[in-house]
Amino acid sequence: MQRFEHGGNIYQGVPVTLDFSANLNPLGMPPSVKKAISENPERFEIYPDPDCRELRAALASYHGIAPEDILAGNGADDLIYRMAFAKKPRKVLLTGPSFSEYEKSAVFSGAEVVFHPLNPDNDFLVTQAFVDEITDDIDLVYLCTPNNPTGVTVPEKIIRATAEACMEHDAIFVLDECFICFTDKESSIPLLEQYPCMAILEAFTKRYAMAGLRLGYIISKNHSLLQELKGCGPCWNVSGPAQAAGLAALQSNDYLAKGLALIRTEAEYLKQELVQLGLRVFPSEANYIFFYSRQPLYDLLREKGVLIRSCDNYPGLCHGYYRICVSTHEKNEAFVSLLKEVLHG
Amino acid sequence: MQRFEHGGNIYQGVPVTLDFSANLNPLGMPPSVKKAISENPERFEIYPDPDCRELRAALASYHGIAPEDILAGNGADDLIYRMAFAKKPRKVLLTGPSFSEYEKSAVFSGAEVVFHPLNPDNDFLVTQAFVDEITDDIDLVYLCTPNNPTGVTVPEKIIRATAEACMEHDAIFVLDECFICFTDKESSIPLLEQYPCMAILEAFTKRYAMAGLRLGYIISKNHSLLQELKGCGPCWNVSGPAQAAGLAALQSNDYLAKGLALIRTEAEYLKQELVQLGLRVFPSEANYIFFYSRQPLYDLLREKGVLIRSCDNYPGLCHGYYRICVSTHEKNEAFVSLLKEVLHG
Repeated sequence: MQRFEHGGNIYQGVPVTLDFSANLNPLGMPPSVKKAISENPERFEIYPDPDCRELRAALASYHGIAPEDILAGNGADDLIYRMAFAKKPRKVLLTGPSFSEYEKSAVFSGAEVVFHPLNPDNDFLVTQAFVDEITDDIDLVYLCTPNNPTGVTVPEKIIRATAEACMEHDAIFVLDECFICFTDKESSIPLLEQYPCMAILEAFTKRYAMAGLRLGYIISKNHSLLQELKGCGPCWNVSGPAQAAGLAALQSNDYLAKGLALIRTEAEYLKQELVQLGLRVFPSEANYIFFYSRQPLYDLLREKGVLIRSCDNYPGLCHGYYRICVSTHEKNEAFVSLLKEVLHG
Repeated sequence: MQRFEHGGNIYQGVPVTLDFSANLNPLGMPPSVKKAISENPERFEIYPDPDCRELRAALASYHGIAPEDILAGNGADDLIYRMAFAKKPRKVLLTGPSFSEYEKSAVFSGAEVVFHPLNPDNDFLVTQAFVDEITDDIDLVYLCTPNNPTGVTVPEKIIRATAEACMEHDAIFVLDECFICFTDKESSIPLLEQYPCMAILEAFTKRYAMAGLRLGYIISKNHSLLQELKGCGPCWNVSGPAQAAGLAALQSNDYLAKGLALIRTEAEYLKQELVQLGLRVFPSEANYIFFYSRQPLYDLLREKGVLIRSCDNYPGLCHGYYRICVSTHEKNEAFVSLLKEVLHG
């Protein structure tokens, strides 16, 4: 696996019959989103609204914030790169492991990256030791809750302490909540009022199984920061279909609750099966499961048409760590069955 | 008009009934593209191919080049920003006027911008004097043919001389051909073999009236340059609908010829009408018309629901320059009629 390769790339190698590497809502795309894309495609002839007015108004109402607190992007990763290019940080603090685009964007903008290693014996939990690494030379801090790939959430007191430390040391604090909708934890949006150094990343990708459409957003009360990010890249970054799909997704009210119920049940099922197979399963709260296997799995499963996320290209992780998504029961059973074949011949 | 504002932003102010500010193919979106977006929208649940394999193979066949010569982007502007962030040029040479994203991206990456002013008395033609400005301190050179907003093409000998000078002075030469399909000039793609310093920008946006979908690409024989651009930004930048639409658009063979015939006839009609109204019309070869009016037009037309491109935010242009697209005969007549009202009360 290449240094910065992600899950979900089913386009290379032998055909993928079971993709367990991308963490999308197992319910699939809401009907309202399908309708929004496929109805009147001639709408997408013209340039999209560069300010995403309608979408931002709907998001503001959804989150109970103001439209001015929101900037939309071509996926959350677009906003991660804009942050790097706009702020040109000298030193960026990350946990190891965490989502690799934080590091990649920081490296391209010329920053030095400091990895705070998370401890497997403490279930990769983020602790006060991370906060203590925020000193005057740190310009930008990322935390991801639940963390990707571990699925472990960051304790609320650590989020608050990170925000405090970033205020004190004049750093920007980006909290990535792209998977928080799949946990029972609350968003930290209420903290934004108190901490203008803070911004929260969110995405439609996983929540509404619309990864192909590319739609993420960032929320902050620091409107001058959002203006900087907006200016630092193409102005028509969010496509017409993405804006239409986002609006429609926000109207699919019971979809998230249904997806969540399915994920809870199926995550339990998968965890139990994996434990019974002798794998070390970490306490993920998200719609994906993070585990360790002494026996190599990636290539053997790949040969059977199953794609999982090998996590050995994450800083802070050695060989043997894997991430799988929680899918429908039928697919989960099929996966477990193939995994048994691989493990026990 | 704000410093970097573009045409096509119909989302603010009084409703736009005639948008003459965005230069799209007047035939509208090809039926094959509409079908590609609206059929099986659940295809867009999954992450798009980060390498755009199918699309690049189709483009390679279309242009008679290799897939490795092509990098796709979220619109051509995505690639312009990647160029700035990847190459971090110190000094960028542009014509004044030219497409404003060249300047904006250069400024954000910390470059100094040198504007070579084009002369209205010479119809804003690019001459050898531009080539002579390419010295050792220039890292990146942009030319746009036909130029935006003038519609005037760059002579082939000047394109070649620019490539020669960039080779000599170790600069990158980006030739923007996003509108060349609307002229009777040939693409400079055959020059790429000889000039590895050179890259050509292209887009589906205008050619196939699919601005809402965001799809552009860059062509070069300098594969390490393309790899740098690919690495310098989000990996899933080209959405699923954009990739599907691009593939479908390339199969709509007679569409471009039909659009071109319409544009030729209608451009003549519009130019004649504008000249008869006493406006100074420049010799655009593209699907848009560039003219000068002593009498201010933008606000008066905007009040009537007509959006045109006021060009006073282009470096090198003063007040009074405007760009309008060539639309269908019905819309062009409606536009001329409203323009007459504005000019002659």
